[in-house]
Amino acid sequence: MKKPPTRSNKAAPSYSIGLDYGTESARALLVDTRTGEELTTCVFSYPTGTRGVILSKDPNLARQNPADYLLAAEFLLKRTLSLARRNIKGFTPTQIVGIGVDTTGSTPLPVDANGRALGMNPKFAKDPAAMAWLWKDHTSTREAREITEMAREHRPHMIARCGNTYSSEWFFSKILHCARTSPRVFAAAHLWVECADWIPAILTGTEHPDRLRIGVCAAGHKAMFAHEWQGYPDAEFLSMLDPGLGALHARLRDRALTIDQSVGGLSAEWAERTGLPAGIPIAAGAFDAHLGAIGSGIEPGTLVKIIGTSTCDIAVAPHPDRFPEIPGLCGIVDGSVLPKMLGFEAGQSAVGDIFNWFVDVMKPRGGTHEALSKEAAKIAPGASGLVALDWNNGNRTVLVDQLLTGLLIGQTLYTTPAEVYRALIEATAFGAFTIINRFEEFGVKIDRIINCGGIAEKNPLVMQVYADVTNRTMDVSRSAQTCALGAAIAGAVVGGAHASVAQAQRAMTGVKPRPFRPNPRAHAVYAELYPLYRAIHDAFGTPAPAALNHVMKRLIEIRARTR
Amino acid sequence: MKKPPTRSNKAAPSYSIGLDYGTESARALLVDTRTGEELTTCVFSYPTGTRGVILSKDPNLARQNPADYLLAAEFLLKRTLSLARRNIKGFTPTQIVGIGVDTTGSTPLPVDANGRALGMNPKFAKDPAAMAWLWKDHTSTREAREITEMAREHRPHMIARCGNTYSSEWFFSKILHCARTSPRVFAAAHLWVECADWIPAILTGTEHPDRLRIGVCAAGHKAMFAHEWQGYPDAEFLSMLDPGLGALHARLRDRALTIDQSVGGLSAEWAERTGLPAGIPIAAGAFDAHLGAIGSGIEPGTLVKIIGTSTCDIAVAPHPDRFPEIPGLCGIVDGSVLPKMLGFEAGQSAVGDIFNWFVDVMKPRGGTHEALSKEAAKIAPGASGLVALDWNNGNRTVLVDQLLTGLLIGQTLYTTPAEVYRALIEATAFGAFTIINRFEEFGVKIDRIINCGGIAEKNPLVMQVYADVTNRTMDVSRSAQTCALGAAIAGAVVGGAHASVAQAQRAMTGVKPRPFRPNPRAHAVYAELYPLYRAIHDAFGTPAPAALNHVMKRLIEIRARTR
Repeated sequence: MKKPPTRSNKAAPSYSIGLDYGTESARALLVDTRTGEELTTCVFSYPTGTRGVILSKDPNLARQNPADYLLAAEFLLKRTLSLARRNIKGFTPTQIVGIGVDTTGSTPLPVDANGRALGMNPKFAKDPAAMAWLWKDHTSTREAREITEMAREHRPHMIARCGNTYSSEWFFSKILHCARTSPRVFAAAHLWVECADWIPAILTGTEHPDRLRIGVCAAGHKAMFAHEWQGYPDAEFLSMLDPGLGALHARLRDRALTIDQSVGGLSAEWAERTGLPAGIPIAAGAFDAHLGAIGSGIEPGTLVKIIGTSTCDIAVAPHPDRFPEIPGLCGIVDGSVLPKMLGFEAGQSAVGDIFNWFVDVMKPRGGTHEALSKEAAKIAPGASGLVALDWNNGNRTVLVDQLLTGLLIGQTLYTTPAEVYRALIEATAFGAFTIINRFEEFGVKIDRIINCGGIAEKNPLVMQVYADVTNRTMDVSRSAQTCALGAAIAGAVVGGAHASVAQAQRAMTGVKPRPFRPNPRAHAVYAELYPLYRAIHDAFGTPAPAALNHVMKRLIEIRARTR
Repeated sequence: MKKPPTRSNKAAPSYSIGLDYGTESARALLVDTRTGEELTTCVFSYPTGTRGVILSKDPNLARQNPADYLLAAEFLLKRTLSLARRNIKGFTPTQIVGIGVDTTGSTPLPVDANGRALGMNPKFAKDPAAMAWLWKDHTSTREAREITEMAREHRPHMIARCGNTYSSEWFFSKILHCARTSPRVFAAAHLWVECADWIPAILTGTEHPDRLRIGVCAAGHKAMFAHEWQGYPDAEFLSMLDPGLGALHARLRDRALTIDQSVGGLSAEWAERTGLPAGIPIAAGAFDAHLGAIGSGIEPGTLVKIIGTSTCDIAVAPHPDRFPEIPGLCGIVDGSVLPKMLGFEAGQSAVGDIFNWFVDVMKPRGGTHEALSKEAAKIAPGASGLVALDWNNGNRTVLVDQLLTGLLIGQTLYTTPAEVYRALIEATAFGAFTIINRFEEFGVKIDRIINCGGIAEKNPLVMQVYADVTNRTMDVSRSAQTCALGAAIAGAVVGGAHASVAQAQRAMTGVKPRPFRPNPRAHAVYAELYPLYRAIHDAFGTPAPAALNHVMKRLIEIRARTR
C-alpha cells in the first residue's frame, strides 16, 4: 500500500464525489481527496424494468430508461450531502471540490435537438429503441459484422484500434440497428450520446448538441474516435453503412476530453435540485472500468481486472512512436485511462454472470454461491475431469465474437454441482489468462495484477484459482468501490485538489494487505489443463481445424491423478 | 398386434416363468404360454450395497453380491407360486412348464472348484474382487485396450465380431484386471461364470465346472466365443495376455446353448426351497436385452431398443455365407437372440442414467423427471440453442470407448434446466440415430423399431423426440416387462408349449396400439442439428481433425428460427 504524501494530509480537508452508474443501480461515493478515505456511500436501484433493465422476448435486447439516470443523480447527490452533514465533523458543501462520473458502456441513447433523451419524451415512452441501449444489448450482431467488414476493407487503420473487429455492443452497431429496425426513433434522434457523456452534460446544463463536450474514453473505445483522423470515422465511411448514419456525422463532436478535464460546472438547476453549490467542476465522463482502473492505482506494467457480472481488463502504456496493434483486443485509445498514455481495454463478456446463471437459473443442489464455493474449494485442480468455456455471453477478448456460447466437457454420471461451479470459475480464469498472454505476446508487459469489483471482493476461491491458473500474484484493490473512487479521483483533479491523475492516485489508492499467491502444485495441473481449454477455445472460436479427440482422455488422466 | 394362433388358445392352460435379473432388483413374471398374458409379477431389490450395487471410492467400480441373486430366486419363485395360487383359478404348480432366466451382462463372477461363488465364501466376503463384476464396472479400461490391441494383431477374425474393439465392460477385461490387481481372488477362482449362466446352473444343480452348461449369448457377445473356433479364444492367445488367463482356458466350456435349449431341470434342493415341482426345465440363460428383444417380437428387419438406464439395440438377420463386419458394433453372434440367426447387439452406455444424473445429482430447479419433461415438451426443436453428447458413461456404439465423457454446447446466461434436460434427451436420440445409420450402412436393413424398457414405457417425450430425430415410427412393446417376458418365452419353448421361439413369439408378444410417428417439421430441424452432433461426435471421438467453429453459430441461427 502506498503511503499518501504528507503534504496533502496536512492540507485543509476537501472532498470529491464519484457518481458510478452500473447495470442495476447507481452509487455515489464521497471521498477525502487527501487520503482516498471513503466517507459516505449510497446506492440507488433503477426503478424501470427487471432489476433496472428493460427486457423483451428477444434474449439479446437490454435497454435502460434514461429517466432513471436522472432520478439516480438527484437522489444520490442529495443523499450524499445529508450523509456528509451527519457524518463529517465540520463539513460544509463548499468543501466538495469536484464530481466525476463513470457509467457502463457502450450505452448510447438517442437525444433530440435540445439534447433531451427521446426515451423521456412521452411519444416514445414505450419504445425500447428510444431508450438507452445498455452495453450488454446484443441485438446488433448483424450490423457489427457489416461495420467490421466495411471498416476492414475501407478503413483498416480505424478498425485496427478495436482489435480488427467491431462489436455488437458498440455505439455504431446499435445506431445502425436502430436505423434498420426502428426508423421512427432513428428519424427523431438528432444525436446519439453515450450515457457517460450525457450525465455530465445534464448536470452541467451542456446537453445541447452544440455545447456538448464528450470524453475520449467512450468515443475512442466504442466508436473508432481518434484525434489523428479528426474524431469519429468520416462521413463518407458512415454513409457507406447507411445514408442516415452519414448525415449524423455533421452533428458528432470532433474533439474529446480526458478525465482530468472538466465539461463544466454544476448548473444552477441541478444545484437547486440537490443542494450542492452551483459551479462545482464536473469531470469528463468515462466508463466504469476505466475509472475503476484509476481507482485501483493503474500505471504502466499494471493490469487492473474489474471483475463483476462481466470483466474489464485495463492496462496503460506510454505513448510509443507507432500505435501497437493487438489482435482481438477491444480497444487501444490515447488518453482513455490516464491522460497522455495509451489505454488498453480487454475483457470477458461474462464472469459473475456465469456463476449467477448457474446458481439463479439452473438452481442446482447446494444452492448458494457461498455453499457451492465452499464445496468447490475442496476439489483439487483437475479432479473434476471437467473443462468449460466461459462464453455463455459470447467472447469479448480475444475472439471478439458475441455469438459464441458456453461449453462444458467431461461430465460423467457422478459430476456434482460444485464440480461444475468450480469448472465455470476455472473457465473464467483460463479466459483471463488468455487475455494476459495476448497483452504480453504483443509487447505490453504485465508485471502486476490488481483485481477489484464484487467478485474480487467477495470470492477468495475465484482469486486463488486466478492466481493458480496464471501463476501470478493477485492483488485486490483496497477500495471496494474502485469505479466510484476513480470517478471521485477525476473529480478531485478537475477540482484542483491534485495536479494530475497520477498524483491523485498516489494519494488516494492502494491494495489490500494480503494478496493471493499462486500455489505451484495447483499451477502445475492448470498448466496441463490450459492447453485443453485452448484446444476447444481455438476449435470452436477460430476457423482452424483441430484434432480434439485427446481432450476427454487427457481430462480423465488428469482427474485420475488429482482426485 | 398379432393374433395368437387358435390352436394354443384351445389348449389346456400352461404357464412359464421368466426370471429377470436387473441392475438394482430382480423380478419374476408368470405368463400364459398360449397368449403371453402376464398373470403375476413380483420384484426383489438386492439388499447389498447402494441400490443393489457395491461401490467404492473409485467411480469406475460396480460390483454385486452373488448371494443376492440366490435370495432373489428363492423369494421370487415362492412369491410367484403364492400369487398364482391366489390369482389363477384352478392353478396347480404342475402347469408351470418351464423357466427362463435373463440377467445383466457381462457380469462375470469367480467361482471355486465346486462352482460356488467366491463372494459367498466368508474368506472373501469383504473383497469386491470376489463379487460379481457388474456390467457397468469400468475398472478394466487398461486391460480392454490391451486385449483389443493383442486381438487386432493376433486374432483379427475374433475381434472383428466385437466391432474391432474389446470393451472394459466385458468378461476377459474384468478377469484380467482381477489377475493384475487382486491376485488372491484370481488364484482362488477355479472358473469365471457369467451371471446369466450361473443362475440357471444353480437352479438345476449343474454349477459344478465339469457339468456347467453355458448360453451362447453371453459367451458370444462378451467373450469372443464362437463354435467356428471351438468356443472361447484359444489358450495361446489368452496366455499372451496373462499366463493365468491361459491356464484358465482348459476349464472353460467349448459348447454353448441357444435359448430354446434347456440346461437341466429344477433341482430337488431348489424344488424344496421354492415349492415348485422338481424337474421343471430351465432354459439356457441370456442377457436381458436379448430376451427383451424376444419379448418384443424381434424378427429380421426389426430393431428392438431396450431403453433403461443404458440402452441395448438388438437386431437379427438370417445367416449369410460370410459374417458381416460392422465397425463399432458391440457384437455379432450366431444364435444369441433367435436360434439359427445372427444376433446383433449395439447400445448406448447411458440413457436413463443421464437423465437420472441431471435430476438426482445436479438437482436443478424444477426437480422431477415429470416436471422437466413437461417443460421440455414445450420447447421447439432447435429453440434451446443447445446440443449435447450422450457420453456421460462413455460410448458403447459406434465408438466403443468408455473413456469418453459428456459435453454440452450452447449455454447462454438464460439457459434453463428444462432446455438442458431436452438437450440430453435429444443427445440420446442422436446417439440412437447414429446406431441405426451404422446398421443400415453395413447392409442390415431396419424396417421397424420396437421400443421397450422403463423409459419407452414412461416418457412419451423421449419416444416422440426419437421419432422426430430418426424420422421413423416408434412402436412400443405391449409388455411393460419384455425381458422377463422373453425369459418366460424361453421357458415356454424348453417346456414344450411351443415348437420354436418364433412360434412362441407369434403367440405371446405384441405392440401397443398407438405408435409415435415423426413430425415432419420437427424432423426438418433435427436434420439440421444432427450434422452438428456428428461434427462434435467425430471431433471428440475420432482422430479426424475437424473444423468446429461453425457449431455454435449454426445453433444460434437454428435457435433464432425455431424459438
